[in-house]
Amino acid sequence: MVCSFFMTKTIIITAAGKGLRMGADLPKQFLPIAGKPILQYTIEQFYNYDNAMEIILVLPEDHIPYWQLLINDHNFTIPHQLVEGGETRYHSIKNGLEYATGEVIGVHDGVRPFASQEVISSVFAKAEITGSAIPVLPLVDSIRELHGQSSTARDRSRFVSVQTPQCFKSAILKSAYSTGYNELFTDDASVVEANGQSIHLIEGNRENIKITTPFDLEIAKILLKA
Amino acid sequence: MVCSFFMTKTIIITAAGKGLRMGADLPKQFLPIAGKPILQYTIEQFYNYDNAMEIILVLPEDHIPYWQLLINDHNFTIPHQLVEGGETRYHSIKNGLEYATGEVIGVHDGVRPFASQEVISSVFAKAEITGSAIPVLPLVDSIRELHGQSSTARDRSRFVSVQTPQCFKSAILKSAYSTGYNELFTDDASVVEANGQSIHLIEGNRENIKITTPFDLEIAKILLKA
Repeated sequence: MVCSFFMTKTIIITAAGKGLRMGADLPKQFLPIAGKPILQYTIEQFYNYDNAMEIILVLPEDHIPYWQLLINDHNFTIPHQLVEGGETRYHSIKNGLEYATGEVIGVHDGVRPFASQEVISSVFAKAEITGSAIPVLPLVDSIRELHGQSSTARDRSRFVSVQTPQCFKSAILKSAYSTGYNELFTDDASVVEANGQSIHLIEGNRENIKITTPFDLEIAKILLKA
Repeated sequence: MVCSFFMTKTIIITAAGKGLRMGADLPKQFLPIAGKPILQYTIEQFYNYDNAMEIILVLPEDHIPYWQLLINDHNFTIPHQLVEGGETRYHSIKNGLEYATGEVIGVHDGVRPFASQEVISSVFAKAEITGSAIPVLPLVDSIRELHGQSSTARDRSRFVSVQTPQCFKSAILKSAYSTGYNELFTDDASVVEANGQSIHLIEGNRENIKITTPFDLEIAKILLKA
């Protein structure tokens, strides 16, 4: 019997955002909270979970020199591999996958520094057993479905909100990403599912927010204090 | 021609929560932010928009004496009518509606103190013209629909998250609430829609969160500072 917890692990962390042209805002993943870039917290969460894990960071080409400056300034020494991103999130993950050697591969948003250790552990463990696992949360607000100009109320208890890290056995994820791109692919579960695999859900943690607005950044500052 | 902006307005603010039994947590609407109960901020938002608006506050029976103590302690003088709530949100709104005299009636969650003046103004104005209006926001996270043990990815751009205040011409809302209760009624739009009316959407404001957890309360403290 092979103990599933001996499977080697990779995490692909992706941080998109527009290029670093003059006058543009600094992409959120590089913004500091309490003096440290968000992306650094994100990487540390995975390193703290398993310091033997392979860490691949996918960044847009013109962000890479900036990240290297940040690493240097902050004496950030956690080993990770840098890979150039592609045109969309899908293409970025596909690029990262070429370098991924783990038997189980997780994919995570660089601007989600608050995935809990419990969630990271559960989602990798579940993927080792079932082949796929993603963290989800119930919806807080009511929800409506749009149909052109009109809309209808939907039963919110039938829906869940999806977070990352999303974890898969390597062969499942690589096979899914070898098929063509579809603009409905907003996460890895949708790519894997389109390739005929079912997705297993685990309970996420509410604090695991995606930092995309100045408001989110303020929330992140509180979460860090707590 | 009747100018629609002469229509009289009512806001029904509802704050549910468990009874104030010994040892239970204080319901969120009574918790202070910067020394003032959340419910007081919520009421002020509507009074600031239109100080001639009829304000009806629906509270569980055993919360009413506590609210009266709070009003007194905080010298809270904005006029409002207190109505006893019912078994569910639906039944509470139905009770409030018996006292509502406005030509346009809004319904709002007591634990949403951050509806912007712009959203309140837009949603009432739109309801005066169309008969119904609710504030909505695009989804930030991916979404999945549950089917028993399985689930499928859905296109998040086809869904919106629903907030309050939800506003309706009086006859439309009262007619909808005179039909029977259904457990799928999670907001007023779903009640009105089940009665055959279409719902008009306006853009909400992201800060208009529903304060239901200690985490939300921390966010509310930031929002108040900002």
